[in-house]
Amino acid sequence: MRNDCHICRAEGFTANSRVTIELRGRQLIATLNVVEQYVLPRNHIGFSKVAAERLGIAYGDSIRVKHGPVLLSLSALRKKIYGNELNEAEIRSIIVDISTHRYSDIEIASFLSACAGHRLSAEEIIFLTRAMVNCGEKLSWQGHEKVFDKHCIGGLPGNRTTPLVVAIVSAAGLIIPKTSSRSITSPAGTADAMETLTRIELGLDEIQKVISHTGACLVWGGAVNLSPVDEVLIRVERALDLDGEGQLIASVLSKKIAAGSTHVLIDIPVGETAKIRTQADAERLAALFTEVGSALGLAVRCVISDGTKPVGSGIGPAEEMRDVLAVLQNKRSAPKDLRQRALFLAAQLLDFARGKGIDEALSLATSLLSSGRAWQQFQHIIDVQGERKELPMAKHQDIQYALQSGIVYDIDNRRLSRLAKLAGAPGEACAGLRLHVNVGNKVEQGQPLFTLFTASLGERDYALSYYRDNFDMFEIGD
Amino acid sequence: MRNDCHICRAEGFTANSRVTIELRGRQLIATLNVVEQYVLPRNHIGFSKVAAERLGIAYGDSIRVKHGPVLLSLSALRKKIYGNELNEAEIRSIIVDISTHRYSDIEIASFLSACAGHRLSAEEIIFLTRAMVNCGEKLSWQGHEKVFDKHCIGGLPGNRTTPLVVAIVSAAGLIIPKTSSRSITSPAGTADAMETLTRIELGLDEIQKVISHTGACLVWGGAVNLSPVDEVLIRVERALDLDGEGQLIASVLSKKIAAGSTHVLIDIPVGETAKIRTQADAERLAALFTEVGSALGLAVRCVISDGTKPVGSGIGPAEEMRDVLAVLQNKRSAPKDLRQRALFLAAQLLDFARGKGIDEALSLATSLLSSGRAWQQFQHIIDVQGERKELPMAKHQDIQYALQSGIVYDIDNRRLSRLAKLAGAPGEACAGLRLHVNVGNKVEQGQPLFTLFTASLGERDYALSYYRDNFDMFEIGD
Repeated sequence: MRNDCHICRAEGFTANSRVTIELRGRQLIATLNVVEQYVLPRNHIGFSKVAAERLGIAYGDSIRVKHGPVLLSLSALRKKIYGNELNEAEIRSIIVDISTHRYSDIEIASFLSACAGHRLSAEEIIFLTRAMVNCGEKLSWQGHEKVFDKHCIGGLPGNRTTPLVVAIVSAAGLIIPKTSSRSITSPAGTADAMETLTRIELGLDEIQKVISHTGACLVWGGAVNLSPVDEVLIRVERALDLDGEGQLIASVLSKKIAAGSTHVLIDIPVGETAKIRTQADAERLAALFTEVGSALGLAVRCVISDGTKPVGSGIGPAEEMRDVLAVLQNKRSAPKDLRQRALFLAAQLLDFARGKGIDEALSLATSLLSSGRAWQQFQHIIDVQGERKELPMAKHQDIQYALQSGIVYDIDNRRLSRLAKLAGAPGEACAGLRLHVNVGNKVEQGQPLFTLFTASLGERDYALSYYRDNFDMFEIGD
Repeated sequence: MRNDCHICRAEGFTANSRVTIELRGRQLIATLNVVEQYVLPRNHIGFSKVAAERLGIAYGDSIRVKHGPVLLSLSALRKKIYGNELNEAEIRSIIVDISTHRYSDIEIASFLSACAGHRLSAEEIIFLTRAMVNCGEKLSWQGHEKVFDKHCIGGLPGNRTTPLVVAIVSAAGLIIPKTSSRSITSPAGTADAMETLTRIELGLDEIQKVISHTGACLVWGGAVNLSPVDEVLIRVERALDLDGEGQLIASVLSKKIAAGSTHVLIDIPVGETAKIRTQADAERLAALFTEVGSALGLAVRCVISDGTKPVGSGIGPAEEMRDVLAVLQNKRSAPKDLRQRALFLAAQLLDFARGKGIDEALSLATSLLSSGRAWQQFQHIIDVQGERKELPMAKHQDIQYALQSGIVYDIDNRRLSRLAKLAGAPGEACAGLRLHVNVGNKVEQGQPLFTLFTASLGERDYALSYYRDNFDMFEIGD
């Protein structure tokens, strides 16, 4: 609004006031920006695109502006900030207010920070999960007693096992309607990677159709309004580069429950520079996942996996998808570690479903992959989902070379992820990097370490300048 | 920037990107808002007023825009969010980045929320205080061995003792260069109240002059750049209605140390609806204040006072000042409780200075106030500071009446403060309310409880509608 607006004067609004906008019975709560007089004509109000869409407003509409409501849930938020435990009604009140867009970004940031670390009890996480489920749609899969899902809590660059696992286990007859999220803090989420290849924004009816044809799908969860409050939280989590434990569990399980899953496999990679750093933290997280899932009627199996080094060679949406396709097509160039991890996880899911032991499950998974049946199944899924696209290629490719000879003792996952993000991933699907070495390899001075992929010179220069300051993210020694 | 801006495309900027702006060797870090093409001409960038001032930019200047820096202190912030203790270098790095405006509001909100509750150790509070002191100016008072100050940690509506205490103890010869802040979460701070009467934005030279003439001043601390990072934090704390323990101590003591104080009296009111709710919390806070002060070379004395009910009758900048003037002028209408509290605190300071016992100090304070010498001293101070203004009167005055007869058992300080704030305080100096009853009084149905003061009808209606939903903030019973 203009700085000389009579409504601001009459109502006592100032910059950053929270205001309620009313149009034809619809309401929106917004943060007020005050602008100079030449920015807007008299008696006009400017809206952000999101706000205009949410309110369905068009140029020339008359609206009513009044003080924002006093949000009672902010007392509960303060109680949590001060370290007290919240009851179910309090957590529900916060989540309802966030899901109806009543919180400003700084209030959301405060909520996330107050809940991060180990500051949510198991009971609070259960309340949070249930509140998040109840804010959105719920899917149900009539006629299917067991509905499967898998989730990796992330932190390992390149670890794109989901499309492989879904193809393998659905080829074996399991129902696995996989809804994935976009990246929160990593260079790519499964949704970002799948989007380089096919349509991922499917509606509920379309998903039902894909499942009835193939038993599986690989779509973006955000398009189907499952636990939609999670998207609001993730936007601020991403800006803070933050992914708290309780929030993480509620985010994952609320989406699984809303998606109608009954059996979920959680992969927790552990490593010094992975998201989870110690075996003890991983066990704690696994126990919490199982406890919260069980309280909400969900069977959860957790596996703790090696998170000490990147998986596969590609990092970033398109480059990770290239690795996935190589594994499905049994190419000689396919990364062995990615293939092995996918088979291990598929076997866990098959055993979870059939209970005939992990050896039998592993040999079934391997035969489905090696025989090309998983690849056929994958093509079937993306064809029913929609188009099949060519993977994009980056405009700029820059090879970086080893500065010394020796053994690669370690690669810092966090800094490697940051490098891929600075290169433009996941916003630019083609951006990222491709490793030419991994931990344990011997390298000669001048040998290629990785290729950087960027879509613009600005991003290339920015990423390379970060790498020059952080070339020790590759620890090479005698 | 425009949504079709070639720089955004080339650099990969999107909405909420953090960017660095360079102009003639000056730098600024900002959050990018992306606007439709009709809002700005091609090749133009719009700035907020604050950003334009900080950068010294004028229409037609050419600037450079690039990616914001990777802030290393964000790792320290995440470490704190995850519940770990920070060392001095880590805390300094966060405070330096905040003081140079490198943090976005959501990052500041995250920092404040992660530090709230009891989540800063005594050592961390010492580091934080020192880092805050080092970000701004430091005053020194040559020739004065002892320099006094007082601070009330707030939470009690109407408790405006500071102008009274400063007048009394400086009339007794103590040096007390009082720099106050504006309200953080209350309907008025001492700076807001003093501003209704006189000039409070004095520079360093002017403050030195006032002190050399009178031994005291009553000015706004923000104008003299003492611990300026505190103002940045307070802006977000206010939006969150949050005032954490460690942050509180660092905020108060950093300003006292930067102001060159050697002896500080801290008043901690305790009551169920005051900022501090229990005697145990107050004692814990007092011990922390003393420990942190001592580590930084400051003598701190804490007094724990009654915080069960509002003090005085006026709430809001002008109404509180009206009470202060009545006490100084020994008017019959002067609130007795405000007078008593001021005398008690003045006596504590006089005893702190002279060590002759509290009884002797109390009788000295009483005689200075009763004889009119404190009132003379107060007038002297505001005359040397600048103009003497008439207190503003609110345009709208609405009396609210008791709905039943009985005894006022309790008044909810928090909701009473909120009511005064909804009426427009402290933004509107004349806004607030005047109590006609206090806890312990007997009232008849239809007797006036309070008068609401507002500057606009919008604020009046909003405040009254809140009161109608919360009339039980006055607990009246048999």
